Amino acid sequence: MLIDFSSISPRNAYQWMTHTIIPRPIAWVSTISAEGVTNLAPFSFFQGITANPPTLMFVPVNTREGKKKDTLRNIEAVPEFVVNLVTHPAAAAMNETAASLPYGESEFSKFGIEPIASEKVRPPRVAGSPVAFECRLDRIVQIGGGPIAANVVFGRILMAHIADSVIGPGGLPDAAKLDLVGRLGGEDYATTRDRFNLVRPD
Amino acid sequence: MLIDFSSISPRNAYQWMTHTIIPRPIAWVSTISAEGVTNLAPFSFFQGITANPPTLMFVPVNTREGKKKDTLRNIEAVPEFVVNLVTHPAAAAMNETAASLPYGESEFSKFGIEPIASEKVRPPRVAGSPVAFECRLDRIVQIGGGPIAANVVFGRILMAHIADSVIGPGGLPDAAKLDLVGRLGGEDYATTRDRFNLVRPD
Repeated sequence: MLIDFSSISPRNAYQWMTHTIIPRPIAWVSTISAEGVTNLAPFSFFQGITANPPTLMFVPVNTREGKKKDTLRNIEAVPEFVVNLVTHPAAAAMNETAASLPYGESEFSKFGIEPIASEKVRPPRVAGSPVAFECRLDRIVQIGGGPIAANVVFGRILMAHIADSVIGPGGLPDAAKLDLVGRLGGEDYATTRDRFNLVRPD
Repeated sequence: MLIDFSSISPRNAYQWMTHTIIPRPIAWVSTISAEGVTNLAPFSFFQGITANPPTLMFVPVNTREGKKKDTLRNIEAVPEFVVNLVTHPAAAAMNETAASLPYGESEFSKFGIEPIASEKVRPPRVAGSPVAFECRLDRIVQIGGGPIAANVVFGRILMAHIADSVIGPGGLPDAAKLDLVGRLGGEDYATTRDRFNLVRPD
């Protein structure tokens, strides 16, 4: 079938995109407000960008009511964040933090998720996450205009925390030991447990 | 362990990023040169951005020799592209198109991949792909400076082709029927065959 994206609603476009651009890695992003209140929320419009300089991006889309997410408000006030990655055992806790809490209520305390101080940035990281990237805001690129604009947040990676327990024989993180999950459409997720290998051509 | 990204090489940073930001969806991008020669290449720094307006992005990182990828050269000449998604049965063919061919040699003919004309853009799409997004270049954002700059290509989605065979009972694409693959680190990939569901909180 043919879907003409110039004539469908944003809600429909979102459904087609999120059910096909899969599997998406999940950024569990911790931020802090100017008043020092922490926030933790998951985003799947998330990706690496380049290693030179080390940069990643994620998109905190607006709430269903068209308001800025707390994550974006915090980054505008304190331009730092931590991207924590999500293991299969942590998926249920990650999903709880997708709830809409009043601004100023921390998901860390509300859902009993242990924070731990970061090295170079003010927001804490998730203590139980085997991979956490401490980032400084590089820039925010707006796509679309007006109050519904999407804000693409680019972050420079300053520091990574990697649990020793996930390192494989080659000295790099091992997918089996990480056991991360990816986002699909609707309320579906995929593990990375069914893997295969393809030798890259020259 | 702590990895200080300000003191490691871009090559090492790339390895840490690609082994942890997983699973990444794969964009199999078709483009066309001003002379009409087609190109097809896979990219895993790829993601949806927003549905309003419908936008996606991918990053054609430079070759190991520091040269622009043919995909980027083509988009600069003809600012349109198609993002074809990659099924498990198509993964081996996708991997072949990661080879470095001389500029002007098409992966479609070299590897026997059937092209089919697009509706609204000049580059063809992959006939066998169950999902293809026809895109017009929105903008290119440069991250980093000089010849090693990363070029983040944002595309406005004009049209999607979705195979009727992948539509589920709810009228949207079904992950099981799509059977897409995601990119991990090194030469590893994951399927989306091991799935689970989490009810989103209010």
